[in-house]
Amino acid sequence: MAKLTLGVDIGGTNLRVGVVQDKKVIHEQRFPADFSSICKQHAPAIALQEILRISLSALQQAMKQYPDVNGIGMGFPGFIDPVAGHVVQSPNLPGLRHVDIAGELSRLIGLPVAMENDALVAAFGEFLLLPQAPRSMVYIGLGTGVGGGFIHAAKPYPGDHGIAMEVGHLITEPKGRLCGCGNHGCLEQYAAAPGVSQSYHQATGESLSAQDIAERAAQGGSAALDAYALAGRHLGLAIAHLAKILDPEVVLIGGGMSQAWSYFSPALFRQLHEDSIPVLRDKIDVRVSNSSDQAGIIGAAHLVNH
Amino acid sequence: MAKLTLGVDIGGTNLRVGVVQDKKVIHEQRFPADFSSICKQHAPAIALQEILRISLSALQQAMKQYPDVNGIGMGFPGFIDPVAGHVVQSPNLPGLRHVDIAGELSRLIGLPVAMENDALVAAFGEFLLLPQAPRSMVYIGLGTGVGGGFIHAAKPYPGDHGIAMEVGHLITEPKGRLCGCGNHGCLEQYAAAPGVSQSYHQATGESLSAQDIAERAAQGGSAALDAYALAGRHLGLAIAHLAKILDPEVVLIGGGMSQAWSYFSPALFRQLHEDSIPVLRDKIDVRVSNSSDQAGIIGAAHLVNH
Repeated sequence: MAKLTLGVDIGGTNLRVGVVQDKKVIHEQRFPADFSSICKQHAPAIALQEILRISLSALQQAMKQYPDVNGIGMGFPGFIDPVAGHVVQSPNLPGLRHVDIAGELSRLIGLPVAMENDALVAAFGEFLLLPQAPRSMVYIGLGTGVGGGFIHAAKPYPGDHGIAMEVGHLITEPKGRLCGCGNHGCLEQYAAAPGVSQSYHQATGESLSAQDIAERAAQGGSAALDAYALAGRHLGLAIAHLAKILDPEVVLIGGGMSQAWSYFSPALFRQLHEDSIPVLRDKIDVRVSNSSDQAGIIGAAHLVNH
Repeated sequence: MAKLTLGVDIGGTNLRVGVVQDKKVIHEQRFPADFSSICKQHAPAIALQEILRISLSALQQAMKQYPDVNGIGMGFPGFIDPVAGHVVQSPNLPGLRHVDIAGELSRLIGLPVAMENDALVAAFGEFLLLPQAPRSMVYIGLGTGVGGGFIHAAKPYPGDHGIAMEVGHLITEPKGRLCGCGNHGCLEQYAAAPGVSQSYHQATGESLSAQDIAERAAQGGSAALDAYALAGRHLGLAIAHLAKILDPEVVLIGGGMSQAWSYFSPALFRQLHEDSIPVLRDKIDVRVSNSSDQAGIIGAAHLVNH
């Protein structure tokens, strides 16, 4: 029997633990875990203890049912030091700085625990779930923000400070919309779900979710189609930069908002074609992911072998 | 005695062969070799034969003096297929497409011949010549164009189609100056030597070389300083993209125009600081190269061991 590994995906309000065998999740459990509120309500040292307590309890429950797991991998919403494995800091979990969550959990459980940035882990899972492994893959996850991950030589690429592939903060509109990072015109202000809502609101005065706007686009609503076309154009601008720098075999678009692929992809391809250098034009395989939401768990579990 | 390897650097009008021992060039010879004119004057098959004949003759001369060389590495001005090692195409050598120059030379000489893109080879040489090897390094070479190379895990990163790090064609000014690649606003239209000349000409009506403009900048000429500041600003915009994508330890600026570092670096750092995300700000070590012009030869020679 192939060995079992736990993969942990930490979301906004919950924590999912999966028991992973090869590339399959054979058991999955979800636990309430609002780490963001915990970090906002408590002093850092107490917040850390709470995060450890909740994570430990979830892991132990899974291990009660599957005592043979050989390791644990976790995707964490923060920057992870690629050498030490520490959480350097986390934009959504204020106060957490240079904390060794993986090391602490490993000492408490007695198993190896590997940790990596959640977007990079999702990218790794998406890579593993492709029918044929490309030599290199850029992943762009579209959701409430825009995350990214680069997989090269079948390994996640974290960068020197664990900050590589901050794709959402590539500036695609100089002096454009104000971003939470303090800059103007970052990709995610146009291509993440709230950005699409903002584009639609600017045109119509109506406040709708990106999903509702996709439904209007499906009915041919021109303001809805325009909002997604703008998202696609900005993605095309960013992917052109990524292509010229990384020259990857595959660019995979995933995340919740990728379900609106048919509305934003024409503008994406148009802009990418326009911005490409001739020798690269049409060489890079840009496609939408069709994997389930288990990529994060599978990617996390496979960190253990790296 | 450490083994000897030949490193070949192919420039615009000549070909340099160096005998390399570890990271030192112990012998260097220069041969006239205007491959660009050859490719423009002859049919591709004949041009290829000429290129092979000139290269072979140069290599044999070096090997007559140093018969103990164990291999040959070459930096070639073109895109090199990372799997097959073929020259896929070359912007400056029209007609050359999918030709196996390294393989042909290897068969003729009876030694392993490795070939890689010249900018990437220069980057690799610059990396090898640093007193302390960084975990990852982006190289930007400023000359008549802007080239680049990424070194990760002590290896040159060619990309999936041998086209990675086309830094000179990152678009830093949408709808900006027309570039030879067909697009508008590519970095090299502002940050390469002819771009600096163009900026100066637009302001003053005078046509000067980038080097002459640097001399005027040294005397405090404001149009000259402005032309270099514009180059620096565009470099800052491009390095911000590179940093968010690759998160390298070091960004090294080299090439002939890097001698004007003191005129363009203030604007570079200002723009990079402005465009960075907070967590990356001031983390990346951007510096000017102080290596000799032998980086290309040393990088080429070290391809053989990879």
